[in-house]
Amino acid sequence: MKNVNQIRIPKEASIKRIINLMKDTGFNGKRLAKACLIYEEMIKDSECRKFFGLAGAMIPAGMRRIIRDWINKGYIDVLVTTGANLTHDLAEALGYHHLQGDSQASDKELRKKGFNRIYDVYMHNEVYGAMEDFVQGLEFSSGMSVKEFIWFLGKKLKDDNSIMRTAAKKKVPIFCPAFTDCGLGIQLALNKEIRINQFKDLKEIIDLAWTAKKAGIIIIGGGVPKNHIMQALQFTPKNASYAVQITTDTPSPGGLSGAELREGISWGKINQKAKRVEVLCDATIALPIMAGYLA
Amino acid sequence: MKNVNQIRIPKEASIKRIINLMKDTGFNGKRLAKACLIYEEMIKDSECRKFFGLAGAMIPAGMRRIIRDWINKGYIDVLVTTGANLTHDLAEALGYHHLQGDSQASDKELRKKGFNRIYDVYMHNEVYGAMEDFVQGLEFSSGMSVKEFIWFLGKKLKDDNSIMRTAAKKKVPIFCPAFTDCGLGIQLALNKEIRINQFKDLKEIIDLAWTAKKAGIIIIGGGVPKNHIMQALQFTPKNASYAVQITTDTPSPGGLSGAELREGISWGKINQKAKRVEVLCDATIALPIMAGYLA
Amino acid sequence: MKNVNQIRIPKEASIKRIINLMKDTGFNGKRLAKACLIYEEMIKDSECRKFFGLAGAMIPAGMRRIIRDWINKGYIDVLVTTGANLTHDLAEALGYHHLQGDSQASDKELRKKGFNRIYDVYMHNEVYGAMEDFVQGLEFSSGMSVKEFIWFLGKKLKDDNSIMRTAAKKKVPIFCPAFTDCGLGIQLALNKEIRINQFKDLKEIIDLAWTAKKAGIIIIGGGVPKNHIMQALQFTPKNASYAVQITTDTPSPGGLSGAELREGISWGKINQKAKRVEVLCDATIALPIMAGYLA
Amino acid sequence: MKNVNQIRIPKEASIKRIINLMKDTGFNGKRLAKACLIYEEMIKDSECRKFFGLAGAMIPAGMRRIIRDWINKGYIDVLVTTGANLTHDLAEALGYHHLQGDSQASDKELRKKGFNRIYDVYMHNEVYGAMEDFVQGLEFSSGMSVKEFIWFLGKKLKDDNSIMRTAAKKKVPIFCPAFTDCGLGIQLALNKEIRINQFKDLKEIIDLAWTAKKAGIIIIGGGVPKNHIMQALQFTPKNASYAVQITTDTPSPGGLSGAELREGISWGKINQKAKRVEVLCDATIALPIMAGYLA
Repeated sequence: MKNVNQIRIPKEASIKRIINLMKDTGFNGKRLAKACLIYEEMIKDSECRKFFGLAGAMIPAGMRRIIRDWINKGYIDVLVTTGANLTHDLAEALGYHHLQGDSQASDKELRKKGFNRIYDVYMHNEVYGAMEDFVQGLEFSSGMSVKEFIWFLGKKLKDDNSIMRTAAKKKVPIFCPAFTDCGLGIQLALNKEIRINQFKDLKEIIDLAWTAKKAGIIIIGGGVPKNHIMQALQFTPKNASYAVQITTDTPSPGGLSGAELREGISWGKINQKAKRVEVLCDATIALPIMAGYLA
Repeated sequence: MKNVNQIRIPKEASIKRIINLMKDTGFNGKRLAKACLIYEEMIKDSECRKFFGLAGAMIPAGMRRIIRDWINKGYIDVLVTTGANLTHDLAEALGYHHLQGDSQASDKELRKKGFNRIYDVYMHNEVYGAMEDFVQGLEFSSGMSVKEFIWFLGKKLKDDNSIMRTAAKKKVPIFCPAFTDCGLGIQLALNKEIRINQFKDLKEIIDLAWTAKKAGIIIIGGGVPKNHIMQALQFTPKNASYAVQITTDTPSPGGLSGAELREGISWGKINQKAKRVEVLCDATIALPIMAGYLA
Repeated sequence: MKNVNQIRIPKEASIKRIINLMKDTGFNGKRLAKACLIYEEMIKDSECRKFFGLAGAMIPAGMRRIIRDWINKGYIDVLVTTGANLTHDLAEALGYHHLQGDSQASDKELRKKGFNRIYDVYMHNEVYGAMEDFVQGLEFSSGMSVKEFIWFLGKKLKDDNSIMRTAAKKKVPIFCPAFTDCGLGIQLALNKEIRINQFKDLKEIIDLAWTAKKAGIIIIGGGVPKNHIMQALQFTPKNASYAVQITTDTPSPGGLSGAELREGISWGKINQKAKRVEVLCDATIALPIMAGYLA
Repeated sequence: MKNVNQIRIPKEASIKRIINLMKDTGFNGKRLAKACLIYEEMIKDSECRKFFGLAGAMIPAGMRRIIRDWINKGYIDVLVTTGANLTHDLAEALGYHHLQGDSQASDKELRKKGFNRIYDVYMHNEVYGAMEDFVQGLEFSSGMSVKEFIWFLGKKLKDDNSIMRTAAKKKVPIFCPAFTDCGLGIQLALNKEIRINQFKDLKEIIDLAWTAKKAGIIIIGGGVPKNHIMQALQFTPKNASYAVQITTDTPSPGGLSGAELREGISWGKINQKAKRVEVLCDATIALPIMAGYLA
C-alpha cells in the first residue's frame, strides 16, 4: 500500500504537476486527479469511442469554449446534452452574452428589467426575440433526427466558438433526447411546422455503442445525458471500459445523477474491470482544471 | 414575529397533527410542513391547474401507488415525468416487481444473477423480455403525441395500480419530453416503426399553461420534468401562484434541480406573491408524509 | 428477497403505520423507517446503554422538548452535545424564545434591530445580557467536570422543559467536549474565574462505554458529538451493537459527519453484526417523525 | 454588468492564470477563484489578523504540508482546529503514515488487519501504541492552556513538516476547543494526570480578536473551528473584513457548517462590507489549488 503523499505545491507549479501530486492524496482531490488521468487515457486510446454527457447550465457559467475545444480536438466523439446547453449556445452565437450577476439579487427587480437569473448569472430575455427571428428564418425538411437538425443549425451559425457549429464541422453527433425541453424547442414549436424523428437518434446512438471497439463515458452532472449514454451501453454487448463522472449529487437519494458508477456494473453498462471514478465537485471547478491538465 | 414552537409530539399523534406542529419550527421540518399546507391549498383551489413533475426512480422505491392515488383523486392535473417512471410502471403492471436489495452488494455478483441495482433496490433483467413481448404485440398509428401514446398504453394495461392506466382513465395528460431516454423507448425503437410527434406535446402543455385560470407546480426531484413545467409557464402570461419543490439538490452548483423557486420569479415562471417552498428532503421520506397528511 | 412495497397510505394513518409501510420501500424512506425500528429496539433492550450525540442548532429549530422528553423517558442514557444546544437551552429557560424568521431577510437590517439569524430562525441578542446576569449570580467550586457543571446549572433552572434540568433530575450525564465553544462558555470566561476539568469528563465517558453491557449510538448531525461517542467505544473492548445516524452530510468529502457507519467497524467502534443505518435527512424532519413513532 | 467569460484554458497555463480566468465565470468555479483572490488580499494586508479554521480529517487526505507551509509563511496568524488534525499531525511526526486505501474495502477485513479507515485512507492502529509511549514520556506542568500545551508538544517533535512544531516555532497560536475529542486527548487522559485550562484559551482568542486592527477568516469545513472563530468576533467590537469558507455543507439544514457567511452579518461577526465568499467544494480539491495560486 502506498502512503498518502503530504503534498507540497511548488512555486510556479503547472496544473499538470498539481494534479500529479493530488493523485496520491485522498477524498475528492485524489478522485479529481484520477478523473484527469482516466480521461487522458481515453483520449490516447485510439480504439475508444468517447461518449460525453453534459447536463446543467454549463454555458451560462462560462464552460462553452472548453466543451467546444474538446469537440474540436477529438476529445469528445459523441455528445449527449440537455436542450438548455443548445439554447444557450445559440444565444451566444447570436451575440447575446450571459452576464455576471448576484445570487442574492431581488428577483422582483430582475423581472422588471428583463433579466432571467440562473443562480449568479443573468441572461436578458431580449434573446428570445432574436431566437424567434432566427428560427423563423430557417427552412428545413421534415423527419430529420435531432442530430441532423443540430448539425443543420450548426452550419448556419457563424460563431466559430459555437458547440453546435464545431460539432457539425467535425461530424461529432450531438444527441438531445429532451429536445422539446428548452427555449429553442419552444421557438420551433411556436413558429414552425416541425416533425423530428427522435427514434432515429435513439437507433443511431445504440449503433454507435454497438460498433465501438471500446467505449468510454464522461458524465458531467448526470440527468438525461447520463441515462441516455448508459442505456445505450446497456442494450448492446459493449460496456464502458472507462468511466468518469463529475457531479454534486450523492447516491443515497437513489437518483441516477448521484449513483456510483459501480452500480452500472450490475446493469452491464460498465465493465467490471473498467477504470472508473466519480468526483463530488461542481463542474465549473472541475472542467477548467481538467482542461488545463489536458491542454 | 411568532416564536419557534418547541414541539412535543403527543401519543397517538396523527401525521396531520405532527405536520401542524412542525409548521412552527425551523429549517426543513418547517418547510416540509409548509409544503403539505401549500399543496393542500392547491388541491382545494378549484381554479388551480396542478402541474406535477416527477423525476428520479420513484417507482423502484415504492412510491407508485402514492402517485397513482393522487392522479385518481384529482391532486394531479398534469403529470410531467422521466421515461424511467413509465418504464417501471409498465414493469410492475406486467407483474415484475422491484426487490429490496443492498446498496453494498457486489455488483459483479448481481450482474451474474441478472439483477440490475438502483441503489438499494433490484429489478431482474428478465423484465426486458416481457417488455419486448408486450411492445411487439402493440398495434398503433403513427404521429401520436407522447401523451396520446401513453394513454393508449395505459388503456392496454390491466393493473389498476398503474400510473399510466389511471391517468388514461381520468384523462390526466402525462408528458415525457425525454421519451426515448428509457427502456420502454428503447424497446419501441428496436421493435417497431414508430413516429411520435413530440412537438404536439409541447404545444399542448403550453396551451394547458395558457388556459389555466391559476397554475400550481409540485416538483419532485427536479430535472427535465421541472424545466418542462417551468418553461411552459415562462412562455405564457400565466405564472405559478403556488410552488412546492422536494429535492436533495442545492442551489450553488447552478443546476436547475437545486435552484430556489424565487429564481423563477425573474423568469416570469413564478408569481412574486406565490405561496412557495422548497424542501431539502429525499422524496421517499416526503411523499409518504405528504400522502398521510393529504389522505 | 422481498418485493419493494408500493405503499398506499390509508386515511387517518398513524405515524407508526406509515413508518411500518415505509420500511419495505427504498432509499432514505426505508432508512428512516429502519432508524425508528432500531432505536425502538435499543430502548426496549434493557442491557443497552444509549449514547446520543446532538450536533447542530436543534433548539432554535424547535427540537428542545423532543430531546427533553427522550431524556425524561429514559430513551437517552448519555447525551453528548455541542455547546450551542446548552446555550440555547439556557436562553429558553431564562424566558428568551427563538423566533420564526426568514432566510432571505436583510442581515444588515437584522443587525440594526439586534436579531441574530440562524438560517430562518432569529434570537434577539438581548438574551446575552440575561445570560450574563445569570452567570454572574452563580457560585460554584473549581475543578468540576463539565458534566457536573451542567447538572449544577440544570438544578438552578426552573423551566421543566429544560434539557439540562431534566438531565440533572434523571441523572443523565451530559458531555460537552467543546464547552468553551459557545455563548455560555464565553459568559463564564468573561465573568468568572473558572476551572473545569475536561479530562474528568473524558475518563467518565470512556468508563461508561467500558462498563456498558451493550452500547447503542444515536447520532444526530455528526460533528464533535459523533466523534466523542465513537472514540469512547474505540478505546474500550466494547463496540456498538446498534447504530443510527441522521445527517445531511455525505461520505466522499471524507469528513466524519457524513461517514458511513460501517467505516466504524474497521475502527472497532461498531460491531460487525450491529443493527445500523444512516439516513440522509434534516433532523428537523426526522426527529418529529421518530418522536411520533416512539411516543 | 460584465459578461460571463467563456474561458479557454491555454496550453501550459499556470494555476494563477486558470484562476484569473475562472473569476469571470459562474457558480462555484467563480467562487473558488474569488476565494483565492480574497485570501491573497488578506495576506497582503499587513493590518489583517488571519484566523484559520480547520475541520475534518485533512491530514489523512494529504493536506498536512499545505497547512504547515501556510503557517510558516505567515498566511495563518491564528489556527483553530479539531483534535483530529493534531492527533494525525503527531502520528505522521512519529513516523506513522496514512495509507491510500479503498472506500469500498471490507471493513471486517480491515479490522482483522488493524487498519482504521477514513473513507479511502487507512491508518494502522499500531500508531496508538507509539502515541502512548510518546505521551508517557512527557513531563509537563499543570494548568497550561491548550495553546501552551500544543506549543510544548510541538517543540518536542523533530519533524520539520509538523504543523504543531512549525506553529510553535513561528509562535502561531493553535486553539483546539474540543481537545479531549481526539486520540491524543484520550492518550493524555489515560496516561497522565492532566489539568488544562481551556478558559485561558478562550480569553486569549477573544483578546486576539479584540486587539486585531482588522480580522480575516478562512474556514475550511466548518464545525467547532468555524464557530470558535466567529464567536470570538461576535463578542468584540471587531468583525471580519474578509471571509472565505470552503465546505461541502449547505445552508438549509440550518447547521453552522453550511451557513452562508452573510448570516454572520446579523450577529456582528462579519462586516457588512466584508469581502466574502463561500465555496461548495471538497477542501482536498480547493486547498491544493489555493496553494498553487498563492505559492
